[in-house]
Amino acid sequence: MREETQDIGNKTQDIRQEEETSSSESEISTLRPIVVFYPDGKCINAEIGANLLELARSADVSIDSSCGGKGACGKCKVLIKYGAVRNKTQDSGEKEAVSVLKSGVSDLEPSYVLACQSEVIGDVVVEIPVSSRLSELQILQSGVEPTAELESITPLAQKIDVALDPPSLEDNSSDLERLTRGLEVAMKDNGDGAVWDRNKLQMGLDVLRRLPRLLRDNDWQLNVTITDSRGVSEIIDVQPCVEPTHSYGLGIDVGTTTIVAHLMDLNTGTSLGVQSEYNGQIRYGDDVIARIAYASDKKNGLEELKRAVTDTMNSLIAELADSCQVSPNDVTCLICSGNTTMIHLLLGIDPTSIRREPYVPVAQRVPITRAGQLGLNVNPNALVYCFPAVGGYVGGDITSGVLATGMAESDKLSMLIDVGTNGEIVIGNNEWLMCCSCSAGPAFEGCGIEHGTHATAGAIERLQYIPDTDEVLFSTIGKQMPPRGVCGSGLIDAMATLLRSGAMDRAGKLNLSWPSPRIRIVDDEPQFVFVWGREVGREDDIFLTESGIQNLMRSKSAVYAGSTLLLRNLGLSFADVEQIRIAGGFGNYLDIENAVIIGLLPDLPLDKIRFVGNTSATGAWMALLSEKARRSAEEISKQMTYVELMAAGNSFMDEFVAGLFLPHTNISLFPSVVKMLSQSKE
Amino acid sequence: MREETQDIGNKTQDIRQEEETSSSESEISTLRPIVVFYPDGKCINAEIGANLLELARSADVSIDSSCGGKGACGKCKVLIKYGAVRNKTQDSGEKEAVSVLKSGVSDLEPSYVLACQSEVIGDVVVEIPVSSRLSELQILQSGVEPTAELESITPLAQKIDVALDPPSLEDNSSDLERLTRGLEVAMKDNGDGAVWDRNKLQMGLDVLRRLPRLLRDNDWQLNVTITDSRGVSEIIDVQPCVEPTHSYGLGIDVGTTTIVAHLMDLNTGTSLGVQSEYNGQIRYGDDVIARIAYASDKKNGLEELKRAVTDTMNSLIAELADSCQVSPNDVTCLICSGNTTMIHLLLGIDPTSIRREPYVPVAQRVPITRAGQLGLNVNPNALVYCFPAVGGYVGGDITSGVLATGMAESDKLSMLIDVGTNGEIVIGNNEWLMCCSCSAGPAFEGCGIEHGTHATAGAIERLQYIPDTDEVLFSTIGKQMPPRGVCGSGLIDAMATLLRSGAMDRAGKLNLSWPSPRIRIVDDEPQFVFVWGREVGREDDIFLTESGIQNLMRSKSAVYAGSTLLLRNLGLSFADVEQIRIAGGFGNYLDIENAVIIGLLPDLPLDKIRFVGNTSATGAWMALLSEKARRSAEEISKQMTYVELMAAGNSFMDEFVAGLFLPHTNISLFPSVVKMLSQSKE
Repeated sequence: MREETQDIGNKTQDIRQEEETSSSESEISTLRPIVVFYPDGKCINAEIGANLLELARSADVSIDSSCGGKGACGKCKVLIKYGAVRNKTQDSGEKEAVSVLKSGVSDLEPSYVLACQSEVIGDVVVEIPVSSRLSELQILQSGVEPTAELESITPLAQKIDVALDPPSLEDNSSDLERLTRGLEVAMKDNGDGAVWDRNKLQMGLDVLRRLPRLLRDNDWQLNVTITDSRGVSEIIDVQPCVEPTHSYGLGIDVGTTTIVAHLMDLNTGTSLGVQSEYNGQIRYGDDVIARIAYASDKKNGLEELKRAVTDTMNSLIAELADSCQVSPNDVTCLICSGNTTMIHLLLGIDPTSIRREPYVPVAQRVPITRAGQLGLNVNPNALVYCFPAVGGYVGGDITSGVLATGMAESDKLSMLIDVGTNGEIVIGNNEWLMCCSCSAGPAFEGCGIEHGTHATAGAIERLQYIPDTDEVLFSTIGKQMPPRGVCGSGLIDAMATLLRSGAMDRAGKLNLSWPSPRIRIVDDEPQFVFVWGREVGREDDIFLTESGIQNLMRSKSAVYAGSTLLLRNLGLSFADVEQIRIAGGFGNYLDIENAVIIGLLPDLPLDKIRFVGNTSATGAWMALLSEKARRSAEEISKQMTYVELMAAGNSFMDEFVAGLFLPHTNISLFPSVVKMLSQSKE
Repeated sequence: MREETQDIGNKTQDIRQEEETSSSESEISTLRPIVVFYPDGKCINAEIGANLLELARSADVSIDSSCGGKGACGKCKVLIKYGAVRNKTQDSGEKEAVSVLKSGVSDLEPSYVLACQSEVIGDVVVEIPVSSRLSELQILQSGVEPTAELESITPLAQKIDVALDPPSLEDNSSDLERLTRGLEVAMKDNGDGAVWDRNKLQMGLDVLRRLPRLLRDNDWQLNVTITDSRGVSEIIDVQPCVEPTHSYGLGIDVGTTTIVAHLMDLNTGTSLGVQSEYNGQIRYGDDVIARIAYASDKKNGLEELKRAVTDTMNSLIAELADSCQVSPNDVTCLICSGNTTMIHLLLGIDPTSIRREPYVPVAQRVPITRAGQLGLNVNPNALVYCFPAVGGYVGGDITSGVLATGMAESDKLSMLIDVGTNGEIVIGNNEWLMCCSCSAGPAFEGCGIEHGTHATAGAIERLQYIPDTDEVLFSTIGKQMPPRGVCGSGLIDAMATLLRSGAMDRAGKLNLSWPSPRIRIVDDEPQFVFVWGREVGREDDIFLTESGIQNLMRSKSAVYAGSTLLLRNLGLSFADVEQIRIAGGFGNYLDIENAVIIGLLPDLPLDKIRFVGNTSATGAWMALLSEKARRSAEEISKQMTYVELMAAGNSFMDEFVAGLFLPHTNISLFPSVVKMLSQSKE
């Protein structure tokens, strides 16, 4: 069984396993081929001869296709990871089969086919590469809240070709005036909604100095990069026209532990790729308090931290530019969402006062700066917009998250729980928003957990322990590769499955009498082995220690205590909340039920709770693409009221300690979990 | 007689001489003491015991006095340059005389008295130092057009003290938010009219980085420098509070030949001083065409020219800062008015296209830049605003001039003739404005004329030749010092007086049979000696050569031809013009009648024509002080229509050649001059 997992990819196997264990066999007919779409994780029964593109659509899997399935555009290219498909050749009756045989993982080169030209002939696992995915915009709209934010693309920076009439004695207005006029005409022709006041249109001296030569060398045709932010329009670059126009932006979630960068095509609004790395500042301390202390107390500490984060960002930029074949100079805007301290450090602003009562940041709404000014390796004039923060401990990442979920536009009472190194909780609707912050620690980002890792390729993002066979089923993010460690969603699964199986008790202690070699004591500390290294070609095993479990319990308890206290401040309880959105860099998936089982989330009907991924990053690229989203973000940050959980009258520590149990010391708060656990033990 | 001139200062003597020659003795009674106010040149008969401050007011001479003449404020301090006054001691009957005896110029230390405490006891020459003059604003309002521009002071940059409540847990908004709020309150308390949108208030990263430390080191009280330009408000500096607040701006006329800088106190709206120097670019060529050629053709030419002009500006800044005891860092804004080429060169923008048909500048409305960016030695964040131009050959200096004269707000049909190295002429009213440009050359700025000089201290600004005695009466600008040369107004006087006396003919040829040693031939060229070097302690004589006369004739003819053609384009003639304003760096005075006699100005009733000084510089400091003036300038530049005199249909060369006579070849255009000349010869 384990051999087969390796053969066909962890992912596929897991899903099939899950079906076998948790669904009745009748739901997935074994008579019709099974088609699995990856990374979406959608599994569907198909008829022999079914068209792969149509199947994907019926399964709500987004595949790009601009020619309408004629095999002309090449955008629906997919990777056959397991199984085979048949090529539908239109004129002749000839059928060409592309098959991937079961064999060792690395023995076979995976094969690309066009989904629109492929027919199902048997079980098949299909991976939709980033390049073939429909814009993240569309994925978001179905996956998170349907918001009205992105009706049209109005990017923070846009490139526009302008063709000017050469000057004459009859019309000898200046180059700049001519360019401005031409730009107005071009934008009107494009139907661009952006409105700017030509009298307020700015241009830096560096660009103006290059203008006359460029105009005359390029026959009065230029490509103009224009930005519009906070009511100020500016031409930030002029270049010769090229076909097609390359215009890119970066949406960057600057997390305390992890930095995630999305590269967006600003012409089409599509995501070209995403990369994440641990924030290079980690070596200066795990949380914002440690970072602030370093910046405050060490000579040049602020400068070192600034360099660490820009180095990480530059590394992500280089990776994205390389993998997406994009020139960094064509990146003309960045939107950064991060907590208040991270943004201070990125801009080189002393964050000392955030750490000391009364926890005052230098700025909630920092100036729009230039990439060159911050040392970021893109177009030096690229705008860097940082989401406005609410306060010292509720940053622009939360503004971004509220934007991404659309909760500020909904009349439903919604709660957003964003689990990062800090946990932030927002509650409200289209009339009011309250928020709070609590120190969750980086455990759910895999930090401070042996074999924990952040949610990138190779991370185990789902796992399940099957006590009957003493097996662990798991799936990793990204391409077939040996598992590197366990990311947030996998850690939640791990905690829940250990608890349900009885291998761990409600205090987070492993059952040392458990009849399995998976529980063992190393260096005086009990641990549970999820993956045997020898089975996946690793030198060491992947396990979770009791101290890791305690770290995870502290994190989940802090978040739950914060949520509880925020509601209590408003005279509300979880039952009043109409929808809960859980966000964070857990991975691509989060098993909500497991998050409830461990007491990270309240015991509500599961259909009220949804995992919305990294909303900080989502909001960042939404704002890259939409002027309305940028305006909303400014409004959201002003609208939110911060509740200080440490203030007198709040009993954060009491609530926190009460939560250091699974799911909670007050078991009456989790009736369905109690029921489930008692069933598991039966 | 000449001995006495030296003794009591040229100025005084000249005026007395003029009175003797051109006025009847009865107008200035010799029985009552004569009081001369310098540099205004006002001469008045006074009663013995008359109060000096009241006398000045009755003579329309501006002297500052904020205590109402009580001897308390010390602002009406004046210099007794000749003669004596008596101190009016209020309580006792004691009278203390301050007298300056006739003696050698440098033998006696001049004495300062308070005008309000001084009574006339005999003839006296009083100099009002810069520090005691009422604001140039008021001088302007009486001296040039009364415009409504400067009803209140709304400077381009203002410094405001703000006192903030320290943060608390109840109010822990950010430093920037707190500062913004405090600023709003302080501005409201001050009754400042400036309106800014706090959501659009900008702050550079450098200032923001300094903010937290400064706030905490200065007990939450700071002095904030805020600017407002083109709809964008920005905090450009924060500093500890000092008493009093030093807030200065520079209004700079960046001329092709001469650069004039006014240092303004932005708190009070008063002028602290003015300095001028030849533009360091002169060594690269006399006119804009030569400068453009150098910038276009020489490697690093543009950079050299940029450095030359900023060097000159920095030299003026250093002189003003030194003489007015001002820290350059307290200069927070500059307004530059200059022709289009000068502004291009100042900003380092290639002016090549201005020189070539169709004479297109790179920008008419250049970006607002920073002093630091341009290498100007004031506060590096100081805004540099350049007046918008109309076209390649009608620059921001003319926009500034139209602003200063108020002609764009008047319903009278007005003409502004600005004589610089280029001559520009504007005609219009509050409904329309037309303008043109012609190359006048730098002759009236003293360039290309042996013993010509620009209008600074020591320049002869008025002169008159008395044929009967073969004497030349003259006055110089500024303190008593040997004459350095002759500036524009003096050169016009020279031409007119030679023509009227018959020492020169209408073709500009000197009469070699004239019975005076003043006309002589040196190096084959006739010349007229105005000042014998031996009489003023100079090694050489001050004279005007025939080639200098020809240069002056070309300049005056170009200006007259331009004026004529602009009118002709509109189907108008000089008779239709209700008022003519002549502007330029001629000096403090211009004898309008003499300007008509030589044919620089048309033969209209003299009350229609007024000399308004350097309106480019005046407009610059008006705009420094008034937001309304800045908005008007933007409107004026858009409103003005440029007429290309070189375009087909215009006959500039014909008109120009016709003007190469004194006053003109077509003598019927100057009937009153003809009459006057015939009378002179009688």
